[in-house]
Amino acid sequence: MTKELKGRPVAKALLERTMKTVEDLKKIDCYPTLAIVRVGDDKSSISYENAAIKTMQQSGIAVEPVVFKETADAEEVLQSIEALNQKADIHGILVMQPLPDTLSRNDIARCLNPNKDIDGLTPENLGRVVENDPTTLVPSTPKAVMALLEFYGIEVEGKDVCVIGSSPVVGKPLSIMLLNEEATVANVHVKTKDIKQYTCQADIVISATGVVELVKAEHIKEGAIVIDVGFGYKDGKPVGDVSYDDVFEKAGAITPVPGGVGSITTAILAEQVAQAAWNQRSD
Amino acid sequence: MTKELKGRPVAKALLERTMKTVEDLKKIDCYPTLAIVRVGDDKSSISYENAAIKTMQQSGIAVEPVVFKETADAEEVLQSIEALNQKADIHGILVMQPLPDTLSRNDIARCLNPNKDIDGLTPENLGRVVENDPTTLVPSTPKAVMALLEFYGIEVEGKDVCVIGSSPVVGKPLSIMLLNEEATVANVHVKTKDIKQYTCQADIVISATGVVELVKAEHIKEGAIVIDVGFGYKDGKPVGDVSYDDVFEKAGAITPVPGGVGSITTAILAEQVAQAAWNQRSD
Repeated sequence: MTKELKGRPVAKALLERTMKTVEDLKKIDCYPTLAIVRVGDDKSSISYENAAIKTMQQSGIAVEPVVFKETADAEEVLQSIEALNQKADIHGILVMQPLPDTLSRNDIARCLNPNKDIDGLTPENLGRVVENDPTTLVPSTPKAVMALLEFYGIEVEGKDVCVIGSSPVVGKPLSIMLLNEEATVANVHVKTKDIKQYTCQADIVISATGVVELVKAEHIKEGAIVIDVGFGYKDGKPVGDVSYDDVFEKAGAITPVPGGVGSITTAILAEQVAQAAWNQRSD
Repeated sequence: MTKELKGRPVAKALLERTMKTVEDLKKIDCYPTLAIVRVGDDKSSISYENAAIKTMQQSGIAVEPVVFKETADAEEVLQSIEALNQKADIHGILVMQPLPDTLSRNDIARCLNPNKDIDGLTPENLGRVVENDPTTLVPSTPKAVMALLEFYGIEVEGKDVCVIGSSPVVGKPLSIMLLNEEATVANVHVKTKDIKQYTCQADIVISATGVVELVKAEHIKEGAIVIDVGFGYKDGKPVGDVSYDDVFEKAGAITPVPGGVGSITTAILAEQVAQAAWNQRSD
């Protein structure tokens, strides 16, 4: 196994598979289309949107951008999503973060059609993760982690896995996905008495906190797999939750930041637009 | 703290609170009503149904039994549930297990109206547990565990909790509920390499496997809280997952079987019928 678990080859493999699914769909006159809803002009939001658009184009998926001014009324945005829910030629809807103060993530989750919810935001899709329903649309970041593990042949069944962070977007659904694959999962977080007690006994440590360089060599056992889902800045340079140079020698394998899990998420979104189109097609 | 954590006082306190809610609802002309759907005449199912009916009566909740022959058509049962979904004077629907071979738990979960799903079976309600939505209807057994911990003043925030068993009905939702209360949660199961490694470092051990006397004194640390969600038989007598006599001395506190968590679940169901009626009332 390669020591540095890069995200790009994973994304490439996913894209190739999605391209084939999209081709098959087009043969039966279904043209997978993603609506991207953005409110305001947040720079990092636009940059992620551009990356998503590029990935969709590579996969043969059409994109319909829906842009609101930052001053837009909450009701106006929700009505636009309702309209997209109804449109038969829109298969997926991606609502960009951050949202304006008048709109919560939950407002969007309550409004989105679960069949078009390609980033696993709705309670119905989150619940299907708990049920271990393989056809469900799931949150993209935890799925990117699972795809990376699978791509590099890292078995999780029966392994001791420690997930750091318990957000409803990454930590909790990731813990459930790992349990679904029969890993032993310890979920630790800011209230944990002694994080090291768990990380040091883990075969796989996955950190998703956004706390820069939280995980050091002393936190892992020799040869552990270290997956870094964090993203932050140190001295103006992008870094993750893991103190990379410190951990590299001791780890069995490790994901870089940038270039690790983060470079897989748009490929997951594309995969799920194709899956959503497929599900809607067979309805 | 008492050493034996009996379920009955917990159930009594819950019932008193529910009775008040039901009285308030009746003052605004809302008469909480539960439909209980049973297919066939499974003995343990009827016995649990009778216990549920008694608890509902104590709480002032009306019960409408809907009984099908074991030979009933799956479509006929699902249509009856659909009809109950629509009836404004039915606030909760409880579908008894076991179901006949032609009907899966998932068929029921896909058919039930989430607003009437008082045992947290539907993906929408499971997903709201992941979201930590306090108004959601949740699976009764994990909620009974949380109610017991709360009643006996056992704080979980920051505690090391080990959940044994990862079923979608108990283990997984319980792990999520504990994470929502900011416990550190290790979820172990049949594929775990070394269960003791986790149980012995836990402040609270919760076992939900159905494996008779799986948990022995050697599995817990001195003074740990031990919650037994298991149910089985040994020499014709009902027992749990925990080897009670063996563990009692070493534990800080322990639930008996029978008379522990199992004796709280019907009170949780009553609480959730009242909650469902309340939610539907304010719609």
